[in-house]
Amino acid sequence: MGRVTERRRVIRIRDGAVSTRPDTLVAEEPLEIRLGGKPLAITMRTPGDDFALAAGFLVSEGVLASAAELANIVYCAGATGEGGSNSYNVVDVRLADGVPVPDITLERNVYMTSSCGLCGKASLDAVRTTARWPLDTSPDTPVRIEPATLSALPDRLRAAQRVFERTGGLHAAALFTADGELLDIREDVGRHNAVDKIVGRALQQGQLPLSSCVLMVSGRASFELVQKAVMAGIPVLAAVSAPSSLAVDLAVETGLTLVGFLRGTSMNVYAGEHRLALSAAASTD
Amino acid sequence: MGRVTERRRVIRIRDGAVSTRPDTLVAEEPLEIRLGGKPLAITMRTPGDDFALAAGFLVSEGVLASAAELANIVYCAGATGEGGSNSYNVVDVRLADGVPVPDITLERNVYMTSSCGLCGKASLDAVRTTARWPLDTSPDTPVRIEPATLSALPDRLRAAQRVFERTGGLHAAALFTADGELLDIREDVGRHNAVDKIVGRALQQGQLPLSSCVLMVSGRASFELVQKAVMAGIPVLAAVSAPSSLAVDLAVETGLTLVGFLRGTSMNVYAGEHRLALSAAASTD
Repeated sequence: MGRVTERRRVIRIRDGAVSTRPDTLVAEEPLEIRLGGKPLAITMRTPGDDFALAAGFLVSEGVLASAAELANIVYCAGATGEGGSNSYNVVDVRLADGVPVPDITLERNVYMTSSCGLCGKASLDAVRTTARWPLDTSPDTPVRIEPATLSALPDRLRAAQRVFERTGGLHAAALFTADGELLDIREDVGRHNAVDKIVGRALQQGQLPLSSCVLMVSGRASFELVQKAVMAGIPVLAAVSAPSSLAVDLAVETGLTLVGFLRGTSMNVYAGEHRLALSAAASTD
Repeated sequence: MGRVTERRRVIRIRDGAVSTRPDTLVAEEPLEIRLGGKPLAITMRTPGDDFALAAGFLVSEGVLASAAELANIVYCAGATGEGGSNSYNVVDVRLADGVPVPDITLERNVYMTSSCGLCGKASLDAVRTTARWPLDTSPDTPVRIEPATLSALPDRLRAAQRVFERTGGLHAAALFTADGELLDIREDVGRHNAVDKIVGRALQQGQLPLSSCVLMVSGRASFELVQKAVMAGIPVLAAVSAPSSLAVDLAVETGLTLVGFLRGTSMNVYAGEHRLALSAAASTD
Protein backbone atom coordinates (compact mmCIF):
# COMPACT_ATOMS: atom_id res chain seq x y z
CA MET A 1 0.00 0.00 0.00
CA GLY A 2 2.95 2.31 0.60
CA ARG A 3 1.18 4.18 3.32
CA VAL A 4 2.88 2.77 6.39
CA THR A 5 4.79 6.00 6.75
CA GLU A 6 4.16 9.50 5.48
CA ARG A 7 6.34 12.58 5.16
CA ARG A 8 5.50 15.87 6.81
CA ARG A 9 7.35 19.11 7.36
CA VAL A 10 8.71 19.57 10.86
CA ILE A 11 10.42 22.42 12.69
CA ARG A 12 13.22 21.02 14.81
CA ILE A 13 14.39 22.85 17.90
CA ARG A 14 17.70 21.64 19.32
CA ASP A 15 19.23 23.66 22.14
CA GLY A 16 17.71 26.83 20.79
CA ALA A 17 18.65 26.24 17.17
CA VAL A 18 15.67 26.10 14.83
CA SER A 19 15.59 24.30 11.49
CA THR A 20 12.94 23.04 9.11
CA ARG A 21 13.11 19.67 7.41
CA PRO A 22 10.95 16.77 6.27
CA ASP A 23 10.15 14.11 8.84
CA THR A 24 8.89 10.56 8.51
CA LEU A 25 5.76 9.81 10.50
CA VAL A 26 3.84 6.64 11.06
CA ALA A 27 0.63 6.63 9.05
CA GLU A 28 -2.63 6.51 10.98
CA GLU A 29 -5.99 6.21 9.27
CA PRO A 30 -9.41 4.90 10.25
CA LEU A 31 -10.48 1.46 9.09
CA GLU A 32 -14.16 0.61 9.12
CA ILE A 33 -14.79 -3.10 9.40
CA ARG A 34 -18.10 -4.26 7.98
CA LEU A 35 -19.58 -7.71 8.40
CA GLY A 36 -21.92 -8.79 5.63
CA GLY A 37 -22.23 -5.16 4.59
CA LYS A 38 -23.12 -3.82 8.05
CA PRO A 39 -20.72 -1.58 9.99
CA LEU A 40 -19.22 -3.49 12.89
CA ALA A 41 -16.31 -1.42 14.19
CA ILE A 42 -13.95 1.37 13.34
CA THR A 43 -10.36 1.36 14.45
CA MET A 44 -7.54 3.84 13.95
CA ARG A 45 -4.79 1.80 12.37
CA THR A 46 -1.65 1.96 10.30
CA PRO A 47 -2.64 0.98 6.74
CA GLY A 48 -1.46 -2.40 5.53
CA ASP A 49 -2.56 -5.97 6.25
CA ASP A 50 -6.09 -4.65 6.45
CA PHE A 51 -7.73 -7.95 5.57
CA ALA A 52 -5.65 -9.68 8.23
CA LEU A 53 -6.63 -6.98 10.70
CA ALA A 54 -10.32 -7.51 9.95
CA ALA A 55 -10.00 -11.29 10.18
CA GLY A 56 -8.04 -11.14 13.41
CA PHE A 57 -10.52 -8.71 14.91
CA LEU A 58 -13.28 -11.21 14.17
CA VAL A 59 -11.28 -13.99 15.81
CA SER A 60 -11.03 -11.83 18.94
CA GLU A 61 -14.78 -11.25 18.76
CA GLY A 62 -15.48 -14.97 18.59
CA VAL A 63 -16.96 -14.75 15.09
CA LEU A 64 -14.20 -16.50 13.13
CA ALA A 65 -12.14 -19.55 14.07
CA SER A 66 -10.88 -20.93 10.77
CA ALA A 67 -10.19 -19.88 7.21
CA ALA A 68 -13.05 -22.12 6.09
CA GLU A 69 -15.53 -19.90 7.93
CA LEU A 70 -14.37 -16.91 5.91
CA ALA A 71 -15.82 -16.44 2.41
CA ASN A 72 -13.87 -13.33 1.46
CA ILE A 73 -12.81 -9.84 2.43
CA VAL A 74 -12.95 -6.92 0.02
CA TYR A 75 -12.32 -3.19 0.06
CA CYS A 76 -15.61 -1.40 -0.43
CA ALA A 77 -15.47 0.29 -3.80
CA GLY A 78 -18.15 2.73 -2.77
CA ALA A 79 -16.03 4.29 -0.09
CA THR A 80 -14.28 7.07 -1.84
CA GLY A 81 -11.55 9.37 -0.76
CA GLU A 82 -10.67 12.68 -2.31
CA GLY A 83 -11.23 12.81 -6.04
CA GLY A 84 -13.54 9.83 -6.02
CA SER A 85 -10.76 7.29 -5.52
CA ASN A 86 -11.13 4.27 -3.29
CA SER A 87 -9.98 5.27 0.18
CA TYR A 88 -9.03 1.69 1.09
CA ASN A 89 -10.34 2.49 4.54
CA VAL A 90 -13.45 0.30 4.51
CA VAL A 91 -13.38 -3.50 4.35
CA ASP A 92 -16.33 -5.85 4.17
CA VAL A 93 -16.05 -9.37 5.53
CA ARG A 94 -18.32 -12.08 4.17
CA LEU A 95 -18.69 -15.24 6.22
CA ALA A 96 -19.00 -18.65 4.60
CA ASP A 97 -22.45 -20.15 4.21
CA GLY A 98 -23.78 -21.48 7.46
CA VAL A 99 -21.50 -19.46 9.75
CA PRO A 100 -23.72 -17.58 12.17
CA VAL A 101 -23.59 -13.81 11.84
CA PRO A 102 -23.60 -12.22 15.29
CA ASP A 103 -26.28 -9.78 16.29
CA ILE A 104 -25.14 -6.32 15.35
CA THR A 105 -26.37 -4.27 18.25
CA LEU A 106 -24.75 -1.37 20.01
CA GLU A 107 -23.70 -3.47 22.96
CA ARG A 108 -21.95 -5.91 20.68
CA ASN A 109 -20.28 -3.37 18.50
CA VAL A 110 -18.40 -0.83 20.48
CA TYR A 111 -14.81 -1.54 19.64
CA MET A 112 -13.02 -3.68 22.21
CA THR A 113 -16.15 -4.30 24.18
CA SER A 114 -17.48 -7.63 23.05
CA SER A 115 -16.40 -9.18 26.29
CA CYS A 116 -16.75 -6.10 28.46
CA GLY A 117 -20.10 -6.29 30.07
CA LEU A 118 -21.08 -4.29 33.06
CA CYS A 119 -18.16 -5.19 35.26
CA GLY A 120 -14.87 -7.00 35.22
CA LYS A 121 -16.53 -10.17 36.40
CA ALA A 122 -18.93 -10.20 33.47
CA SER A 123 -16.00 -9.58 31.12
CA LEU A 124 -14.05 -12.51 32.47
CA ASP A 125 -17.07 -14.76 32.20
CA ALA A 126 -17.69 -13.73 28.62
CA VAL A 127 -14.18 -14.53 27.46
CA ARG A 128 -14.11 -17.80 29.32
CA THR A 129 -17.29 -18.99 27.71
CA THR A 130 -16.62 -17.81 24.17
CA ALA A 131 -13.05 -19.05 23.65
CA ARG A 132 -13.06 -21.71 20.94
CA TRP A 133 -9.88 -23.29 22.18
CA PRO A 134 -9.63 -23.37 25.95
CA LEU A 135 -5.96 -23.23 26.92
CA ASP A 136 -4.39 -26.47 28.13
CA THR A 137 -3.92 -25.79 31.82
CA SER A 138 -2.78 -29.25 32.85
CA PRO A 139 0.49 -29.38 34.82
CA ASP A 140 2.06 -31.53 32.07
CA THR A 141 1.36 -28.96 29.37
CA PRO A 142 3.25 -29.64 26.16
CA VAL A 143 4.34 -26.00 26.04
CA ARG A 144 7.30 -25.44 28.34
CA ILE A 145 9.55 -22.46 27.96
CA GLU A 146 12.95 -21.57 29.33
CA PRO A 147 13.15 -18.13 30.95
CA ALA A 148 16.33 -17.60 28.93
CA THR A 149 14.29 -18.07 25.76
CA LEU A 150 11.89 -15.35 26.85
CA SER A 151 14.77 -13.05 27.75
CA ALA A 152 15.98 -13.19 24.16
CA LEU A 153 12.65 -12.08 22.68
CA PRO A 154 12.72 -8.30 23.27
CA ASP A 155 15.95 -7.89 21.31
CA ARG A 156 14.54 -10.00 18.47
CA LEU A 157 11.36 -7.97 18.47
CA ARG A 158 13.25 -4.71 18.30
CA ALA A 159 15.63 -5.99 15.63
CA ALA A 160 12.68 -6.93 13.45
CA GLN A 161 10.86 -3.61 13.87
CA ARG A 162 11.41 -1.77 10.65
CA VAL A 163 9.15 1.24 10.84
CA PHE A 164 9.75 2.09 14.48
CA GLU A 165 13.35 3.01 13.73
CA ARG A 166 12.22 5.63 11.25
CA THR A 167 9.27 7.04 13.14
CA GLY A 168 9.52 6.15 16.83
CA GLY A 169 5.77 5.93 16.68
CA LEU A 170 4.81 2.31 16.40
CA HIS A 171 3.80 -0.51 18.64
CA ALA A 172 4.82 -4.01 17.69
CA ALA A 173 3.53 -7.51 18.27
CA ALA A 174 5.48 -10.62 17.36
CA LEU A 175 4.74 -14.31 17.31
CA PHE A 176 7.46 -16.74 18.36
CA THR A 177 7.76 -20.48 18.72
CA ALA A 178 8.31 -21.88 22.20
CA ASP A 179 11.99 -22.08 21.23
CA GLY A 180 12.13 -18.36 20.50
CA GLU A 181 12.04 -18.50 16.71
CA LEU A 182 10.36 -15.47 15.15
CA LEU A 183 7.28 -16.45 13.13
CA ASP A 184 5.69 -13.08 12.39
CA ILE A 185 5.86 -9.45 13.42
CA ARG A 186 3.45 -6.57 12.77
CA GLU A 187 3.74 -2.88 13.60
CA ASP A 188 0.85 -0.48 14.05
CA VAL A 189 -0.11 2.73 15.82
CA GLY A 190 -2.40 0.52 17.90
CA ARG A 191 -0.98 -2.43 19.77
CA HIS A 192 -4.33 -4.23 19.49
CA ASN A 193 -4.24 -3.79 15.71
CA ALA A 194 -0.77 -5.33 15.53
CA VAL A 195 -2.06 -8.36 17.43
CA ASP A 196 -5.18 -8.59 15.24
CA LYS A 197 -2.99 -8.55 12.14
CA ILE A 198 -0.88 -11.42 13.45
CA VAL A 199 -3.91 -13.48 14.45
CA GLY A 200 -5.68 -12.71 11.18
CA ARG A 201 -2.69 -13.82 9.11
CA ALA A 202 -2.52 -17.02 11.12
CA LEU A 203 -6.21 -17.63 10.45
CA GLN A 204 -5.75 -17.00 6.74
CA GLN A 205 -2.93 -19.54 6.71
CA GLY A 206 -4.94 -22.16 8.60
CA GLN A 207 -2.74 -22.00 11.69
CA LEU A 208 -5.30 -21.38 14.42
CA PRO A 209 -5.22 -22.17 17.27
CA LEU A 210 -1.68 -20.94 17.90
CA SER A 211 -1.38 -23.37 20.78
CA SER A 212 2.39 -23.70 20.84
CA CYS A 213 3.30 -20.04 20.36
CA VAL A 214 4.43 -17.08 22.40
CA LEU A 215 2.98 -13.63 21.68
CA MET A 216 5.26 -10.73 22.56
CA VAL A 217 4.11 -7.10 22.63
CA SER A 218 5.95 -3.86 23.02
CA GLY A 219 4.77 -1.76 25.93
CA ARG A 220 2.11 -2.83 28.37
CA ALA A 221 -0.31 -5.76 28.62
CA SER A 222 -3.93 -4.68 28.86
CA PHE A 223 -7.04 -6.76 29.35
CA GLU A 224 -7.72 -6.47 25.64
CA LEU A 225 -4.40 -8.04 24.64
CA VAL A 226 -4.87 -10.96 27.02
CA GLN A 227 -8.33 -11.43 25.54
CA LYS A 228 -6.96 -11.52 22.00
CA ALA A 229 -4.26 -14.03 22.94
CA VAL A 230 -6.79 -16.32 24.61
CA MET A 231 -9.25 -16.10 21.71
CA ALA A 232 -6.46 -17.16 19.31
CA GLY A 233 -5.45 -20.07 21.53
CA ILE A 234 -2.04 -18.55 22.33
CA PRO A 235 -0.85 -19.90 25.70
CA VAL A 236 1.89 -17.35 26.51
CA LEU A 237 1.81 -13.54 26.38
CA ALA A 238 4.94 -11.55 27.20
CA ALA A 239 5.14 -7.76 27.50
CA VAL A 240 7.99 -5.33 27.92
CA SER A 241 6.08 -3.32 30.51
CA ALA A 242 3.40 -3.68 33.16
CA PRO A 243 0.10 -5.55 32.94
CA SER A 244 -3.13 -4.15 34.34
CA SER A 245 -5.11 -5.76 37.14
CA LEU A 246 -7.79 -7.04 34.78
CA ALA A 247 -5.18 -8.45 32.41
CA VAL A 248 -3.81 -10.53 35.28
CA ASP A 249 -7.29 -11.59 36.39
CA LEU A 250 -8.19 -12.78 32.91
CA ALA A 251 -4.87 -14.60 32.54
CA VAL A 252 -5.44 -16.41 35.85
CA GLU A 253 -9.02 -17.31 34.90
CA THR A 254 -8.13 -18.68 31.48
CA GLY A 255 -4.79 -20.27 32.34
CA LEU A 256 -2.72 -17.97 30.13
CA THR A 257 0.93 -17.52 31.01
CA LEU A 258 1.37 -13.78 31.47
CA VAL A 259 4.87 -12.30 31.69
CA GLY A 260 5.52 -8.60 32.24
CA PHE A 261 8.55 -6.34 32.64
CA LEU A 262 10.51 -8.65 30.37
CA ARG A 263 13.88 -6.88 30.36
CA GLY A 264 17.31 -8.42 30.18
CA THR A 265 17.36 -11.49 32.40
CA SER A 266 14.53 -10.15 34.56
CA MET A 267 10.81 -10.73 34.25
CA ASN A 268 7.66 -10.90 36.33
CA VAL A 269 5.32 -13.85 35.91
CA TYR A 270 1.74 -12.98 36.80
CA ALA A 271 -0.06 -16.17 35.83
CA GLY A 272 0.43 -19.59 34.28
CA GLU A 273 3.92 -20.19 35.65
CA HIS A 274 3.51 -23.95 35.04
CA ARG A 275 4.60 -23.32 31.43
CA LEU A 276 7.94 -21.87 32.50
CA ALA A 277 10.88 -24.12 33.24
CA LEU A 278 11.71 -22.66 36.64
CA SER A 279 14.62 -24.12 38.57
CA ALA A 280 13.96 -26.36 41.54
CA ALA A 281 15.80 -23.74 43.59
CA ALA A 282 12.72 -21.53 43.41
CA SER A 283 12.15 -19.91 46.76
CA THR A 284 9.28 -18.01 48.28
CA ASP A 285 9.95 -15.00 50.41
CA MET B 1 -12.68 4.85 45.16
CA GLY B 2 -9.48 3.13 46.30
CA ARG B 3 -9.26 1.12 43.12
CA VAL B 4 -6.56 3.01 41.25
CA THR B 5 -4.17 0.20 42.05
CA GLU B 6 -4.66 -3.42 43.02
CA ARG B 7 -2.38 -6.01 44.54
CA ARG B 8 -1.65 -9.32 42.87
CA ARG B 9 0.84 -12.11 43.49
CA VAL B 10 3.82 -12.13 41.16
CA ILE B 11 6.72 -14.49 40.57
CA ARG B 12 9.88 -12.50 40.07
CA ILE B 13 12.77 -13.89 38.07
CA ARG B 14 16.04 -12.01 38.43
CA ASP B 15 19.14 -13.53 36.87
CA GLY B 16 17.79 -17.01 37.43
CA ALA B 17 16.66 -16.43 41.02
CA VAL B 18 12.93 -16.99 41.53
CA SER B 19 10.86 -15.42 44.29
CA THR B 20 7.19 -14.80 44.97
CA ARG B 21 5.85 -11.54 46.33
CA PRO B 22 2.90 -9.19 46.10
CA ASP B 23 2.99 -6.60 43.34
CA THR B 24 1.07 -3.38 42.82
CA LEU B 25 -0.74 -3.15 39.49
CA VAL B 26 -2.69 -0.36 37.89
CA ALA B 27 -6.39 -1.09 38.04
CA GLU B 28 -8.23 -1.49 34.73
CA GLU B 29 -11.98 -1.93 34.52
CA PRO B 30 -14.63 -1.25 31.89
CA LEU B 31 -16.78 1.86 32.19
CA GLU B 32 -20.03 1.97 30.30
CA ILE B 33 -21.15 5.51 29.54
CA ARG B 34 -24.88 5.94 29.04
CA LEU B 35 -26.59 9.05 27.78
CA GLY B 36 -30.15 9.51 28.98
CA GLY B 37 -30.23 5.83 29.89
CA LYS B 38 -29.00 4.55 26.52
CA PRO B 39 -25.57 2.91 26.15
CA LEU B 40 -23.22 5.23 24.30
CA ALA B 41 -19.72 3.81 24.71
CA ILE B 42 -17.61 1.49 26.78
CA THR B 43 -14.02 2.25 27.61
CA MET B 44 -11.40 0.32 29.57
CA ARG B 45 -10.26 2.79 32.21
CA THR B 46 -8.61 3.11 35.58
CA PRO B 47 -11.41 3.69 38.10
CA GLY B 48 -11.67 7.18 39.57
CA ASP B 49 -12.93 10.51 38.23
CA ASP B 50 -15.56 8.53 36.36
CA PHE B 51 -18.02 11.41 36.13
CA ALA B 52 -15.28 13.66 34.77
CA LEU B 53 -14.34 10.95 32.27
CA ALA B 54 -17.92 10.72 31.06
CA ALA B 55 -18.29 14.50 30.83
CA GLY B 56 -14.97 14.89 29.02
CA PHE B 57 -15.87 12.12 26.60
CA LEU B 58 -19.05 13.99 25.73
CA VAL B 59 -17.07 17.18 25.16
CA SER B 60 -14.89 15.27 22.70
CA GLU B 61 -18.02 13.97 21.01
CA GLY B 62 -19.42 17.48 20.63
CA VAL B 63 -22.37 16.80 22.93
CA LEU B 64 -21.35 18.95 25.91
CA ALA B 65 -19.72 22.37 25.97
CA SER B 66 -20.57 23.81 29.39
CA ALA B 67 -21.57 22.71 32.87
CA ALA B 68 -24.97 24.32 32.30
CA GLU B 69 -25.72 21.75 29.59
CA LEU B 70 -25.18 18.94 32.06
CA ALA B 71 -28.06 18.00 34.38
CA ASN B 72 -26.30 15.30 36.35
CA ILE B 73 -24.24 12.12 36.21
CA VAL B 74 -24.99 9.10 38.39
CA TYR B 75 -23.73 5.58 38.85
CA CYS B 76 -26.40 3.17 37.72
CA ALA B 77 -27.63 1.33 40.79
CA GLY B 78 -28.91 -1.52 38.70
CA ALA B 79 -25.47 -2.51 37.51
CA THR B 80 -24.34 -4.97 40.07
CA GLY B 81 -21.02 -6.63 40.61
CA GLU B 82 -20.40 -9.78 42.58
CA GLY B 83 -22.71 -10.22 45.55
CA GLY B 84 -25.25 -7.76 44.23
CA SER B 85 -23.14 -4.69 45.01
CA ASN B 86 -22.94 -1.68 42.72
CA SER B 87 -20.05 -2.26 40.36
CA TYR B 88 -19.50 1.49 39.86
CA ASN B 89 -18.72 0.64 36.25
CA VAL B 90 -21.79 2.18 34.61
CA VAL B 91 -22.55 5.90 34.61
CA ASP B 92 -25.59 7.63 33.17
CA VAL B 93 -25.34 11.20 31.94
CA ARG B 94 -28.46 13.37 31.84
CA LEU B 95 -28.35 16.49 29.73
CA ALA B 96 -30.07 19.70 30.81
CA ASP B 97 -33.48 20.47 29.35
CA GLY B 98 -33.25 21.71 25.79
CA VAL B 99 -29.79 20.29 25.06
CA PRO B 100 -30.11 18.14 21.95
CA VAL B 101 -29.42 14.45 22.50
CA PRO B 102 -27.41 13.09 19.59
CA ASP B 103 -28.70 10.25 17.51
CA ILE B 104 -27.54 7.04 19.03
CA THR B 105 -26.70 5.01 16.00
CA LEU B 106 -23.87 2.62 15.41
CA GLU B 107 -21.90 5.07 13.32
CA ARG B 108 -22.05 7.64 16.08
CA ASN B 109 -21.29 5.30 18.92
CA VAL B 110 -18.23 3.28 18.27
CA TYR B 111 -15.75 4.60 20.75
CA MET B 112 -13.37 7.16 19.28
CA THR B 113 -15.13 7.16 15.98
CA SER B 114 -17.50 10.08 16.07
CA SER B 115 -15.27 11.97 13.73
CA CYS B 116 -13.85 9.03 11.85
CA GLY B 117 -15.89 8.66 8.74
CA LEU B 118 -14.83 6.71 5.77
CA CYS B 119 -11.44 8.28 5.30
CA GLY B 120 -9.05 10.67 6.92
CA LYS B 121 -10.46 13.54 4.93
CA ALA B 122 -13.95 12.93 6.24
CA SER B 123 -12.57 12.74 9.76
CA LEU B 124 -10.82 16.07 9.44
CA ASP B 125 -13.94 17.67 8.05
CA ALA B 126 -16.07 16.35 10.88
CA VAL B 127 -13.83 17.72 13.61
CA ARG B 128 -13.45 21.05 11.89
CA THR B 129 -17.17 21.55 11.62
CA THR B 130 -18.14 20.35 15.09
CA ALA B 131 -15.62 22.21 17.25
CA ARG B 132 -17.49 24.68 19.44
CA TRP B 133 -14.49 26.92 19.85
CA PRO B 134 -12.38 27.22 16.73
CA LEU B 135 -8.77 27.85 17.72
CA ASP B 136 -7.47 31.38 17.28
CA THR B 137 -5.10 30.99 14.37
CA SER B 138 -4.28 34.66 13.85
CA PRO B 139 -0.56 35.50 13.80
CA ASP B 140 -1.02 37.77 16.83
CA THR B 141 -2.46 34.96 18.94
CA PRO B 142 -2.61 35.82 22.64
CA VAL B 143 -1.05 32.48 23.48
CA ARG B 144 2.70 32.61 22.98
CA ILE B 145 5.00 30.09 24.59
CA GLU B 146 8.73 29.95 25.14
CA PRO B 147 10.35 26.70 24.03
CA ALA B 148 12.15 26.69 27.39
CA THR B 149 8.75 26.60 29.09
CA LEU B 150 7.79 23.52 27.08
CA SER B 151 11.11 21.87 27.87
CA ALA B 152 10.31 22.06 31.57
CA LEU B 153 6.97 20.25 31.24
CA PRO B 154 8.05 16.58 30.97
CA ASP B 155 9.88 16.71 34.30
CA ARG B 156 6.87 18.35 35.95
CA LEU B 157 4.56 15.75 34.46
CA ARG B 158 6.69 12.91 35.71
CA ALA B 159 7.14 14.48 39.15
CA ALA B 160 3.38 14.74 39.51
CA GLN B 161 2.69 11.17 38.43
CA ARG B 162 1.90 9.29 41.60
CA VAL B 163 0.65 5.93 40.46
CA PHE B 164 3.14 5.39 37.67
CA GLU B 165 5.97 5.14 40.17
CA ARG B 166 4.29 2.24 41.87
CA THR B 167 3.02 0.36 38.84
CA GLY B 168 4.89 1.50 35.74
CA GLY B 169 1.62 0.98 33.97
CA LEU B 170 -0.03 4.33 33.53
CA HIS B 171 -0.32 7.01 30.94
CA ALA B 172 -0.60 10.59 32.08
CA ALA B 173 -2.07 13.80 30.76
CA ALA B 174 -1.46 17.18 32.35
CA LEU B 175 -2.82 20.64 31.83
CA PHE B 176 -0.46 23.61 32.15
CA THR B 177 -0.75 27.36 31.80
CA ALA B 178 1.20 29.01 28.99
CA ASP B 179 3.79 29.84 31.66
CA GLY B 180 4.23 26.19 32.55
CA GLU B 181 2.25 26.12 35.79
CA LEU B 182 0.63 22.75 36.43
CA LEU B 183 -3.17 23.02 36.61
CA ASP B 184 -4.24 19.37 36.63
CA ILE B 185 -2.89 15.90 36.01
CA ARG B 186 -4.70 12.59 35.53
CA GLU B 187 -3.33 9.07 35.15
CA ASP B 188 -5.10 6.18 33.44
CA VAL B 189 -4.41 2.94 31.60
CA GLY B 190 -5.74 4.78 28.55
CA ARG B 191 -4.18 8.05 27.47
CA HIS B 192 -7.48 9.15 25.95
CA ASN B 193 -9.20 8.54 29.29
CA ALA B 194 -6.66 10.70 31.11
CA VAL B 195 -7.39 13.52 28.66
CA ASP B 196 -11.15 13.04 28.98
CA LYS B 197 -10.83 13.25 32.76
CA ILE B 198 -8.95 16.54 32.52
CA VAL B 199 -11.41 18.03 30.05
CA GLY B 200 -14.38 16.78 32.05
CA ARG B 201 -13.12 18.33 35.26
CA ALA B 202 -12.58 21.60 33.44
CA LEU B 203 -16.15 21.45 32.15
CA GLN B 204 -17.48 20.73 35.63
CA GLN B 205 -15.59 23.76 36.92
CA GLY B 206 -16.86 26.04 34.16
CA GLN B 207 -13.42 26.47 32.58
CA LEU B 208 -14.11 25.52 28.96
CA PRO B 209 -12.78 26.44 26.49
CA LEU B 210 -9.24 25.96 27.78
CA SER B 211 -8.01 28.53 25.31
CA SER B 212 -4.83 29.59 27.12
CA CYS B 213 -3.62 26.15 28.18
CA VAL B 214 -1.09 23.56 27.11
CA LEU B 215 -2.00 19.88 27.20
CA MET B 216 0.91 17.50 27.72
CA VAL B 217 0.68 13.74 27.29
CA SER B 218 3.06 10.93 28.04
CA GLY B 219 3.90 8.81 25.06
CA ARG B 220 2.66 9.47 21.55
CA ALA B 221 0.19 11.89 19.98
CA SER B 222 -2.55 10.15 18.03
CA PHE B 223 -5.35 11.62 15.94
CA GLU B 224 -7.71 11.00 18.83
CA LEU B 225 -5.70 13.13 21.26
CA VAL B 226 -5.47 16.03 18.81
CA GLN B 227 -9.21 15.76 18.35
CA LYS B 228 -9.85 15.93 22.08
CA ALA B 229 -7.59 18.96 22.49
CA VAL B 230 -9.32 20.78 19.66
CA MET B 231 -12.79 19.97 20.95
CA ALA B 232 -11.86 21.41 24.38
CA GLY B 233 -10.44 24.57 22.80
CA ILE B 234 -6.87 23.78 23.90
CA PRO B 235 -4.42 25.49 21.49
CA VAL B 236 -1.22 23.55 22.29
CA LEU B 237 -0.63 19.81 22.56
CA ALA B 238 2.82 18.49 23.51
CA ALA B 239 3.85 14.84 23.56
CA VAL B 240 6.94 13.01 24.74
CA SER B 241 7.00 10.81 21.65
CA ALA B 242 5.98 10.79 18.00
CA PRO B 243 2.73 11.98 16.45
CA SER B 244 0.96 10.07 13.71
CA SER B 245 0.37 11.41 10.22
CA LEU B 246 -3.31 12.03 10.85
CA ALA B 247 -2.57 13.79 14.13
CA VAL B 248 -0.37 16.23 12.21
CA ASP B 249 -2.97 16.66 9.47
CA LEU B 250 -5.69 17.48 11.96
CA ALA B 251 -3.42 19.89 13.85
CA VAL B 252 -2.59 21.71 10.60
CA GLU B 253 -6.26 21.88 9.59
CA THR B 254 -7.48 23.19 12.94
CA GLY B 255 -4.54 25.44 13.77
CA LEU B 256 -3.45 23.47 16.83
CA THR B 257 0.18 23.78 17.89
CA LEU B 258 1.49 20.21 17.94
CA VAL B 259 4.85 19.45 19.56
CA GLY B 260 6.39 15.97 19.61
CA PHE B 261 9.57 14.34 20.89
CA LEU B 262 9.66 16.88 23.71
CA ARG B 263 12.84 15.77 25.48
CA GLY B 264 15.33 17.97 27.29
CA THR B 265 15.91 21.09 25.22
CA SER B 266 14.86 19.33 22.01
CA MET B 267 11.46 19.17 20.39
CA ASN B 268 9.78 18.84 17.01
CA VAL B 269 7.03 21.27 16.04
CA TYR B 270 4.61 19.76 13.53
CA ALA B 271 1.99 22.51 13.33
CA GLY B 272 0.99 25.88 14.73
CA GLU B 273 4.50 27.21 15.25
CA HIS B 274 3.13 30.76 15.39
CA ARG B 275 2.38 30.21 19.07
CA LEU B 276 6.01 29.45 19.88
CA ALA B 277 8.46 32.27 20.59
CA LEU B 278 11.12 31.15 18.13
CA SER B 279 14.27 33.20 17.79
CA ALA B 280 14.78 35.38 14.74
CA ALA B 281 17.84 33.24 14.08
CA ALA B 282 15.58 30.50 12.79
CA SER B 283 17.08 28.98 9.69
CA THR B 284 15.80 26.62 7.07
CA ASP B 285 18.00 23.91 5.79
